[in-house]
Amino acid sequence: MIKTERLQADIEALRAISDPCNGGVTRIGFTERYRQGVEYVKQRMQECGLTTYEDEIGNLYGVMEGQDSSAAKIISGSHLDTVRNAGAFDGIAGVVCALEAARVIKERGIKLKHTYEVLGFIEEEGTNFGQVLLGSRFISGDLTDADKDRFISKDKQPLREVLSNYMQGIETVPACRKNDNILAFLEVHDEQGPVLQETNTDIGIVQSIVALSQLSISITGFAGHAGTVPMNLRQDAGLAGCSLVSRMTSYVLRKYTNEATFTVGKFSLLPNSSNCIPNNCSFTIDLRSGTQAIVDNVLDYLQDMKKLVEQEYNVTIDVNIDSYKDEVVMDQGLQQLIAESCDKLGLSYRNINSGAGHDAMIMANLCKTAMIFIPCDRGITHHPLEKVEWEDMRKGTELLLETILRLDSQF
Amino acid sequence: MIKTERLQADIEALRAISDPCNGGVTRIGFTERYRQGVEYVKQRMQECGLTTYEDEIGNLYGVMEGQDSSAAKIISGSHLDTVRNAGAFDGIAGVVCALEAARVIKERGIKLKHTYEVLGFIEEEGTNFGQVLLGSRFISGDLTDADKDRFISKDKQPLREVLSNYMQGIETVPACRKNDNILAFLEVHDEQGPVLQETNTDIGIVQSIVALSQLSISITGFAGHAGTVPMNLRQDAGLAGCSLVSRMTSYVLRKYTNEATFTVGKFSLLPNSSNCIPNNCSFTIDLRSGTQAIVDNVLDYLQDMKKLVEQEYNVTIDVNIDSYKDEVVMDQGLQQLIAESCDKLGLSYRNINSGAGHDAMIMANLCKTAMIFIPCDRGITHHPLEKVEWEDMRKGTELLLETILRLDSQF
Repeated sequence: MIKTERLQADIEALRAISDPCNGGVTRIGFTERYRQGVEYVKQRMQECGLTTYEDEIGNLYGVMEGQDSSAAKIISGSHLDTVRNAGAFDGIAGVVCALEAARVIKERGIKLKHTYEVLGFIEEEGTNFGQVLLGSRFISGDLTDADKDRFISKDKQPLREVLSNYMQGIETVPACRKNDNILAFLEVHDEQGPVLQETNTDIGIVQSIVALSQLSISITGFAGHAGTVPMNLRQDAGLAGCSLVSRMTSYVLRKYTNEATFTVGKFSLLPNSSNCIPNNCSFTIDLRSGTQAIVDNVLDYLQDMKKLVEQEYNVTIDVNIDSYKDEVVMDQGLQQLIAESCDKLGLSYRNINSGAGHDAMIMANLCKTAMIFIPCDRGITHHPLEKVEWEDMRKGTELLLETILRLDSQF
Repeated sequence: MIKTERLQADIEALRAISDPCNGGVTRIGFTERYRQGVEYVKQRMQECGLTTYEDEIGNLYGVMEGQDSSAAKIISGSHLDTVRNAGAFDGIAGVVCALEAARVIKERGIKLKHTYEVLGFIEEEGTNFGQVLLGSRFISGDLTDADKDRFISKDKQPLREVLSNYMQGIETVPACRKNDNILAFLEVHDEQGPVLQETNTDIGIVQSIVALSQLSISITGFAGHAGTVPMNLRQDAGLAGCSLVSRMTSYVLRKYTNEATFTVGKFSLLPNSSNCIPNNCSFTIDLRSGTQAIVDNVLDYLQDMKKLVEQEYNVTIDVNIDSYKDEVVMDQGLQQLIAESCDKLGLSYRNINSGAGHDAMIMANLCKTAMIFIPCDRGITHHPLEKVEWEDMRKGTELLLETILRLDSQF
């Protein structure tokens, strides 16, 4: 039986393994503290009979050998690193659920046909090297040995040097599993958004990890004295910016409320003086959708609005697309299998897109991949207040276990 | 006859008396450079037979005694100090026009009944002591001897100390003229806005120096991940800010295009990260109108919009009124006299409000006061590009002279 007290004990133990910070968890990849966290998880893996090893980049594995050594592997896990002053669940919860699933399989004396691996990715957050998804990208072969000299840590050391220190006395295997025989990768993660909680739903079955475009907008108007230039003769870059932001947001809200997000996180004016009409306005756009066509549609609409606002406010608008990434679609068959498992277990579920990136989007290059979201209080994440109910972690583990068993019997 | 070459020579000479800066004029009150500027003007005053003196605060006078020593005085002038890297006309033009009027009176052998004084105010811009209209406020009695210890210069010296250095070897008279018998103060100034140029009008007759309210707005929402919180569940402080700015501006534009200005010069978000929904948005409002009731109406509308935006975006909005100043109405009789003078001289004119503050608003506490605006290219001011056509300076001087002569004969 799945034991919530074990889930809780692991989460709380890992919460406590933290560098000093402001009430949250700070366990950044490749640090001494991170090593401590890895050793904790490794011991728990070994306790329940998993064989543990680390790869050359520091990803941690706990392996339960299957009956059929030629059968493709089933892998589940998430990352063990945190951002600074993080919550206790982002990433960690997925490893803890996968580990609990292994415990229950062992306890029930179930012999899986397929080998089952619990995986703890390193440096998903990219806090140390500024490279998100670092661990999984070495596993997928996206990153290679040469990159160890290219990436420099926050303390200005190359990854190779940091690794030789971090891995001292530990035997490792190559990270890349491009040629490995993997049946599926399953990642349990807290939603990091409020939808499941708001809709009182147990489980989110991720359809896709969203397409993400990041843009910088720069608007050039003409400065002037706040008191002496009449409203109708102004070229106010700030007003043009506010108008463009309002128009774009209204459009996305009206047309794609639950299908896209449009966020202006940075916004600034020049000369930024209270009695001066701004001659420049710069802001960022973060645009995400599970459907690439929606991203493209919003970008088209932006071009239309740009012309309209340029005319209306007599300004010039530069639109710069800083990044444009396609969505990563999760495996349909696995989604179906998870939905069936929910039905069997009496868990309510809904399809959902992941607005954030996850190791799963990298693993999708190697094998069939799916993600199971569990509710998180008010969507708060990357914050000490991040909270997942223990009962929701239990449900997530139960669903993961059921999915593993179905996969094992069907393939 | 008014000579444009004399107007030009004075402006260009004073343009050249500048501390090093980026192509403009920097002649800040109480500096050595300011002393040089004052000495230049003093010499020109003396050359045309004016008696010069300085008051205790550094205001410069050039006096033409009238035939009737008991008659009230007519004063005209503006300020001689500049902001950093300013244009050559703001303030200076008004002193130069008043001086040229004196020259022409002398040249024509006109004997005025009233004493005519040319006045160069010090530290109108407040660049040295952070106190705008400093010179005129000592004249009006608004500031007194005690304030000399209270005000601290940009170099951290009290005004009294700065004055004892600046005034070394110069005899001075008391600044306050509260009990003096003054018939009128007339200030010629460039518009610092584009209206006269845009409407091809020679002269602006100022009706009032606008009421000015300055506000700080702080909007509190709730932070969140740009990708994981759906649009309809957000409490986006930045969007609320853009919406409030857009709504307020539309209202002012629609209802008070030429009667009020509404400027958002500062605008910032927290945490100001491109992938984070802003939990705070702060901005400033600079609201001006020649009619106090319009300012009050816009402030009322702001309260309505605050409630609406709070509801719509699920945020809290704090509105803080940092300053609230009534308009200063110029003397009706003087406005009439100036309009009649325009008619006689064939100058086109329109009524206009001054969106910026001027020494005239302080002098209005002492005597009948009026302002004559002359066009300035594209409204550019406080900038090296500030430009007034010599012909427009001539027209302004001609009108000032005509007005002085009418005043002299009518009172």
